[in-house]
Amino acid sequence: MINLFDNLPCQAEEELLTELFARKGVRIERIVSTGQSTPEDQPYKQESDEWVLLLTGAAGLWIEGEGERDLRPGDYLLIPARRCHRVYVDSEKPAYRLARHTLLR
Amino acid sequence: MINLFDNLPCQAEEELLTELFARKGVRIERIVSTGQSTPEDQPYKQESDEWVLLLTGAAGLWIEGEGERDLRPGDYLLIPARRCHRVYVDSEKPAYRLARHTLLR
Repeated sequence: MINLFDNLPCQAEEELLTELFARKGVRIERIVSTGQSTPEDQPYKQESDEWVLLLTGAAGLWIEGEGERDLRPGDYLLIPARRCHRVYVDSEKPAYRLARHTLLR
Repeated sequence: MINLFDNLPCQAEEELLTELFARKGVRIERIVSTGQSTPEDQPYKQESDEWVLLLTGAAGLWIEGEGERDLRPGDYLLIPARRCHRVYVDSEKPAYRLARHTLLR
C-alpha cells in the first residue's frame, strides 16, 4: 500500500489494522472501522501513548476520566498509555483512523 | 487547534508549520503549503527521518536518488534522514501535509 485509501474494506467483521511505518519507539497504523464498537466490558488499554487522527467518517470515543466525545474528520487527540478507552463507529459512516503509537519502553 | 483543518491560511508567504504532538524521538507536524516550492539550489535536508502523508491538494516531491513523483491525497512515504529533497506545490491546489519526524538522536 502506498496510498492510505487503497484496499479499503467495505464491510469487515473486525477492525482492519495495517502497519504503515515502524521504528524504535514509534509505530504508525491505519485503522479501518466498519461499524465495530468496543464491547462495554472490554475497553482497550495499552502500554503506549496513542495519538489518533480521524480522517473520514465519524466515530465516538470514550476515554476513562475524560468522558465521551464525537469525532469528525480532522479531529485528533492523545490517548494516554494505560488509560481505558472505547471506540464507537456508525456502520453507515465507516471511519478511517490514523494512529501513531509511542512506545514507552 | 483540535481539528487538523482549523485555522488554514488561504494564502501565505511561507509554509505554515504547526507542531501537533512531541515526545522524545518523535514530532508530529501539520504543514500547509499554498504554492510554495523549495528553491532548486536550497533543498531540504534534516537529521531525522520524516514520514509524510498528503491529506488534501496536490504536490510534487523530489528525493535525492529517487527522482520526482506526484503526490495525491492519501499518498504517504518516508524521506530518510540526511537525504536532500524538494517540494513543489500548485498554488491552485494548496496542500496539507502531515509529517511525522523520528529523531535519531
